[in-house]
Amino acid sequence: MARRIAERVWAPGALIPGEEVLAVEFSCARATVNRALQELARGGVLVRKRKAGTRVALHPMREARFVIPIVRQEIENKGGIYQFRLLSNKVEKAPVTVTKRLGLTKAKEMLHVRCLHLSDGKPYQYEDRWVNLDAVPSIRHETFETISPNEWLVTHSPFSQAEIVFHADLAGGEEAEILGVNEKDSVFVIERLTFVLQKPITFVRMSHPGSHRMVTQL
Amino acid sequence: MARRIAERVWAPGALIPGEEVLAVEFSCARATVNRALQELARGGVLVRKRKAGTRVALHPMREARFVIPIVRQEIENKGGIYQFRLLSNKVEKAPVTVTKRLGLTKAKEMLHVRCLHLSDGKPYQYEDRWVNLDAVPSIRHETFETISPNEWLVTHSPFSQAEIVFHADLAGGEEAEILGVNEKDSVFVIERLTFVLQKPITFVRMSHPGSHRMVTQL
Repeated sequence: MARRIAERVWAPGALIPGEEVLAVEFSCARATVNRALQELARGGVLVRKRKAGTRVALHPMREARFVIPIVRQEIENKGGIYQFRLLSNKVEKAPVTVTKRLGLTKAKEMLHVRCLHLSDGKPYQYEDRWVNLDAVPSIRHETFETISPNEWLVTHSPFSQAEIVFHADLAGGEEAEILGVNEKDSVFVIERLTFVLQKPITFVRMSHPGSHRMVTQL
Repeated sequence: MARRIAERVWAPGALIPGEEVLAVEFSCARATVNRALQELARGGVLVRKRKAGTRVALHPMREARFVIPIVRQEIENKGGIYQFRLLSNKVEKAPVTVTKRLGLTKAKEMLHVRCLHLSDGKPYQYEDRWVNLDAVPSIRHETFETISPNEWLVTHSPFSQAEIVFHADLAGGEEAEILGVNEKDSVFVIERLTFVLQKPITFVRMSHPGSHRMVTQL
């Protein structure tokens, strides 16, 4: 069936034969045809409609998903033992680069919290975070002794919009030391900005050693 | 299992039964239970710990989506003028690193095609691709004079499964020259493996200059 689609024997948008017909044609069980149809539909190659039958997709779906995880769960799901280490936690004036990204017009005091997430005792992610105290006032007196800023925010401050940026960078001196890599090694960086009903909550830069792989299946 | 979680038969944070028990209860193989548990864990619905067993997640992860674009469209959507340059195109023995990733047990001849995608005349993405000729025999005689390998495959060879890996790397000598960056600058790499009904189609490594940003909104 995949070959027929590829070779345009079944053209984009065309209705394909029913399951019984295909089962006879391919000399296999109807359940096998059904499974193959399901898989092709999951991949966006076919479009199935309950009554209208199955058609070849006009524009095969090219969408993948990835989860926005709590870093503790991400590490534990990979079988690692999770720990985190608080590096600093203070209220201070945010740099313009941060306030600008968050759409704030004036420089202001924000919570600046930095920590290291470890998997099996090895550095996994360095989190450098700014939090808008107007949006989340109750975070001001949190000590982050038992819960990381990442997990605290996920459980206390739901967001409605987010922007996520992925890029590659070279490790700066302090960052390299924290991550246990050489200066100017590559690091995999995720930046995340979250908002709740237009109000900025947080800007976070999460960097990982160059060996890090972000994997997603489709 | 998903229904039990949704209906709170298994409450958030609750420990769920072991794989053997579930296999008996659902009258299926333990491997099937294991696969389902893995999938639910990947979606953030379950949390698995090496010794402590599997629990329902207290806070399910948020999901973001990104589009798997045709690189021409990606560049044009950003307002750039697209061009591509074919660098090489030949059938040759694939390295073990490639055949292994594709789940092929024997070394074999594959189509190896390399090209550079440009935006406004500047290097945007270097594509180094291997194609399984058993899955896509008609690609053997394609010259890629008017269509890039990326676009050819999207339009001629639909896939049903894919694995996508993102990571940061340091530019190798030849790669740096092709991308117009310095050797050992950071590069943002996307690897993509695609399959149709279990059959491997292609393995591609796409690298971008360190200035590249992959942005997704949610």
